[in-house]
Amino acid sequence: MTKENLIDCYNRIQPYIHNTPVLSSRLVNTLIGAQVYFKCENLQKTGAYKMRGATNAIMQLTNEQKANGVVTHSSGNFAQALSMAALSLNVRATIVMPSNSPKVKKNAVQEYGGHIIECEPTIEARQAAADQIVNETGATFIHPSNDLNVILGQGTACLELLKEQPGLDMVFCPVGGGGLIAGSALAAYHYGKDCQVFGGEPFEADDAYRSLLSGKIETNTTTNTIADGLRTQLGHHNFPIIQKHVKQIIRVSEDDIIEAMRFIWERMKIIIEPSSAVAFAAVIKKKQEFKGKNIGVIISGGNVDVNNLPF
Amino acid sequence: MTKENLIDCYNRIQPYIHNTPVLSSRLVNTLIGAQVYFKCENLQKTGAYKMRGATNAIMQLTNEQKANGVVTHSSGNFAQALSMAALSLNVRATIVMPSNSPKVKKNAVQEYGGHIIECEPTIEARQAAADQIVNETGATFIHPSNDLNVILGQGTACLELLKEQPGLDMVFCPVGGGGLIAGSALAAYHYGKDCQVFGGEPFEADDAYRSLLSGKIETNTTTNTIADGLRTQLGHHNFPIIQKHVKQIIRVSEDDIIEAMRFIWERMKIIIEPSSAVAFAAVIKKKQEFKGKNIGVIISGGNVDVNNLPF
Repeated sequence: MTKENLIDCYNRIQPYIHNTPVLSSRLVNTLIGAQVYFKCENLQKTGAYKMRGATNAIMQLTNEQKANGVVTHSSGNFAQALSMAALSLNVRATIVMPSNSPKVKKNAVQEYGGHIIECEPTIEARQAAADQIVNETGATFIHPSNDLNVILGQGTACLELLKEQPGLDMVFCPVGGGGLIAGSALAAYHYGKDCQVFGGEPFEADDAYRSLLSGKIETNTTTNTIADGLRTQLGHHNFPIIQKHVKQIIRVSEDDIIEAMRFIWERMKIIIEPSSAVAFAAVIKKKQEFKGKNIGVIISGGNVDVNNLPF
Repeated sequence: MTKENLIDCYNRIQPYIHNTPVLSSRLVNTLIGAQVYFKCENLQKTGAYKMRGATNAIMQLTNEQKANGVVTHSSGNFAQALSMAALSLNVRATIVMPSNSPKVKKNAVQEYGGHIIECEPTIEARQAAADQIVNETGATFIHPSNDLNVILGQGTACLELLKEQPGLDMVFCPVGGGGLIAGSALAAYHYGKDCQVFGGEPFEADDAYRSLLSGKIETNTTTNTIADGLRTQLGHHNFPIIQKHVKQIIRVSEDDIIEAMRFIWERMKIIIEPSSAVAFAAVIKKKQEFKGKNIGVIISGGNVDVNNLPF
């Protein structure tokens, strides 16, 4: 994963994504005692950074592979992102979703042109359904996070942030499957000036934190967190990159997440989902250690049910 | 109010304001059948475009006037804007607020350094309180909308929008006191290429709509609208500019406003206040007439109580 890989990826996907704004707030800077720059991927197409990795993964396929379509299993932002990216690139996308997925999420996938296959709500059932589609149609399976082309794509958000703010001392990302933080770590390594990458992770789904401690991939013992995008499992492609390039993962409580989310809504006037608030919650929690620094925070997404808010 | 007045104003206030992002959405464009560009003044300092006019009005004072401070009466976004602008420019701001103003609004003013004087919640009492401060301290009264320097400042949002999207066929603003739409009309006249300005106004506070019909300033017979920023009265400085340069004012219902607000929250992932939704509601209402056009919409502000949403 060289510097050239990353810039090639960026040039490739650029026509299909938004260069999202970087926002800042005097009040946030005062609160943290540092300069904080929010990279607003909630304003990305489909409302999340996932659009970047999905686009890159499809574009790296051969024409023959593209003709056979792509498939993934996701009930979250990657489902919408792969559907939309496939639509833009004229490729058929099939999304395996648990039968108990919220109707609003199914509607969003269909709106972006994705074809939904329902399965029983278990990890085994969704993988089996995806495998079956691969076998029957020749479609290419694209994992939402544990895929090198997806990781590279996700890294372009941090790349754009560093182009706009080259003097960042550190960048914070939420950690779920690890695609965003692994990609960001590569971008910071290749394009930052001694820019360190930190992760935010809920106590309730802290597989990455424990994996860094033990030196091997640990599994989540609970996933009882409001940060629904971070309930997933760290992958074997992401973990070695995180081990090598991520400075620290900071765990936060559910109350920390909700408080940070509310603060961003009220003060920054943008809609962020709980998973995105985890990164900023980590900054708030350890702000004493970051006085005077230039801090980037990647706001990963804004897909949230406005009728079901935690505040 | 020449082209030079406007550009001088813009150069003057630029260091004190954000050049706010212009966002667009594939889904919005499909819905409207046109290209829609949202100028996001909800992401402006203090969460509203009012920061522009407040800054310009203070900067146009003499040093002696500045030393005596400024005063306004407002329980809304101009109260916060004048406080913050005064803080940035090292001037004392006194804000006359009705005694029944929500605590959250008083807190915001104090947070930005404004000094609050409470008065009885009547128009007469607030003007009397402001007059008293002017007489006692020599402070300069700055009206939230009916002031030529305020109007010029508000026009810089449309100026920035036209710099970024010079091919706009039309720009939509909400209409309350008329400062934003008058300023926008001047900007579109001087900097647009046949760019027409439209207003959105609630049926429940339609003084500007009726004033254009009758040719003289009409007063609101009701102000029973969720768009709290638009309950104010059109001013005599704004009206002739609106008469001369605004194409049309479109009235919308309370349901239209709430639906447009929800749509922007869910699809654009930004927090907008009901007053801002009025402009987009007007676009939705008359979309059949705007097919294929390039449409600018000024999102005026994002100050809303997230615990008291209309959906």
